[in-house]
Amino acid sequence: MNEFALIERFFADPAAHEPPPSWLRLGIGDDAALLAEENGWETAITCDTLVEGRHFLAGTDPEALGWKALAVNLSDLAAMGAVPTGFLLALTLPEADEPWLTAFARGLFACARRHGARLVGGDTTRGPRALTITALGRVPAGEAILRSGARAGDDLWVSGQPGRAALGLAVRLGALPSTLPGAREWIDALDRPEPRLALGCRLRGLAHAMLDVSDGLLGDLRHLLERSAPPFLTAEIEVARLPLDPLVAGGAPPERARAALLSGGDDYELLFTAAPESRDQILLLGRELGLPLSRIGRLVPATAHPMVLIEPDGRRTLPEVLGYDHFCACKEYP
Amino acid sequence: MNEFALIERFFADPAAHEPPPSWLRLGIGDDAALLAEENGWETAITCDTLVEGRHFLAGTDPEALGWKALAVNLSDLAAMGAVPTGFLLALTLPEADEPWLTAFARGLFACARRHGARLVGGDTTRGPRALTITALGRVPAGEAILRSGARAGDDLWVSGQPGRAALGLAVRLGALPSTLPGAREWIDALDRPEPRLALGCRLRGLAHAMLDVSDGLLGDLRHLLERSAPPFLTAEIEVARLPLDPLVAGGAPPERARAALLSGGDDYELLFTAAPESRDQILLLGRELGLPLSRIGRLVPATAHPMVLIEPDGRRTLPEVLGYDHFCACKEYP
Repeated sequence: MNEFALIERFFADPAAHEPPPSWLRLGIGDDAALLAEENGWETAITCDTLVEGRHFLAGTDPEALGWKALAVNLSDLAAMGAVPTGFLLALTLPEADEPWLTAFARGLFACARRHGARLVGGDTTRGPRALTITALGRVPAGEAILRSGARAGDDLWVSGQPGRAALGLAVRLGALPSTLPGAREWIDALDRPEPRLALGCRLRGLAHAMLDVSDGLLGDLRHLLERSAPPFLTAEIEVARLPLDPLVAGGAPPERARAALLSGGDDYELLFTAAPESRDQILLLGRELGLPLSRIGRLVPATAHPMVLIEPDGRRTLPEVLGYDHFCACKEYP
Repeated sequence: MNEFALIERFFADPAAHEPPPSWLRLGIGDDAALLAEENGWETAITCDTLVEGRHFLAGTDPEALGWKALAVNLSDLAAMGAVPTGFLLALTLPEADEPWLTAFARGLFACARRHGARLVGGDTTRGPRALTITALGRVPAGEAILRSGARAGDDLWVSGQPGRAALGLAVRLGALPSTLPGAREWIDALDRPEPRLALGCRLRGLAHAMLDVSDGLLGDLRHLLERSAPPFLTAEIEVARLPLDPLVAGGAPPERARAALLSGGDDYELLFTAAPESRDQILLLGRELGLPLSRIGRLVPATAHPMVLIEPDGRRTLPEVLGYDHFCACKEYP
């Protein structure tokens, strides 16, 4: 049973068959919930927990952790097209370690300041090291980009360079040499992910569906497909269009680079779909933001398989690894 | 260093000297933050973490835990005078134990339904058992009851029967016999606290300052006094006015009943201050709600001690135990 099944099975709202309250625009199941503000805006709200030993290694640099804990939550807002406002921090620590707290706060507030998010509340308690951040944002009413809006014929796009964080983790765990030319960049991507907030906002009105890649490109693509309306969709990914070259140029063995790009978690790039008519506009937007945007495939009416890889030689293959599940740990690095 | 010092020292917002953003009405330091909605309402938002072994015992009935986890967060909304809307659940579990999850969800949704709160999002992850709930509510703009509004001359009031949860814990740990007449009621108070939401709303315009008693009456009273504006206040508590009789009638030894009432945490009653002119109206409100409201003392201009007990014989004593601190565990039961 995976994380999503857990939530859906046990926490299906028993009031779901009743009319939703007027303040609730979108509940469980997307990157964030949407609450109506009745003033032309909606509040986007999301929370994520990071547990030591699962989402970060024991001994992780606390400054990097502070940054990342907030960044991953802001990434969920980016995936809705929302602008961050405030956040709450629930911090559980084995002891009140002052140097640790100082460094953690430095990283946290660096990310907060960079992205305009304000700490508005929280809780501190003793226990096994873990933290939950609840992030709030705003999006013009009706303009949030949901997971559920994908259509047959849409192009499939991904921002930036997915795969770097997984390679960075492999370097940190000693599975790849730290002397590789890409090692520093990969570790930076792992430690200080950049939520794609500017991109998310600018894709309002352009993207039909969007989510952020936290569990691996294929795993999160599956979540997007599962949310699409009947008669459902299949994603065809053109391997030749994947941004593999920069990873290989950084020294990653090609097979490892491919696995990292398709299945490595923790990159927090945006995966989105859009009409083919929007291609030029999207490429222009990427250039404007200085962020490569790769058109990696398209969505077609559902076939026997939800995802198909079209290899450079034209063969069609099925992906094997479907992304990282934080609850089941279906996959382990290295 | 206690929980509150931790938050204030390390997580003092480095942007605090800048003008607050227009959406932020009240940040860190009260029971909940307040966000402007620009439509005549404010959103109250709060989060609390419960960690196994600290906030609840290993082996705690999961249904009771589900109820309580939400109830303690709704209590923070009650303490602002807010009405609950939605909540997010971040759940960390050592394994996907179906009977546990089923019972936990049952308790959680029972509390949600009783108080009109809707689950809007969350996260599930594997790790040492803990949960963080973020609760949202609404209050008419400008009408939230803050910790900071106490004035010299105010009466000091507490709702219901503080002390029951601490006695319930003593029974559960075997420090008091489970055959005492009050044992069942005390354990119910520990397991299924009732957030005082109706009272909180009705006290808008009547109470000058309010918080909920989670860490013990004296400990939380201290937080309220610390928030009052200069020249600061001292609380005089009249021991003869404390609702001790029901605890003693339930079989608690008088000294233990007094300690539980003054210093026991986990009751989630509301502690508030109001003008003496409002006494009749408050007593009437208590009768209307079927909830005893005790006027236990008053606030005077600051003296050498922030809190003084006036014993039944007129002697003035200083309280010894100042409440439970979840981070320092200054106090242990039994």
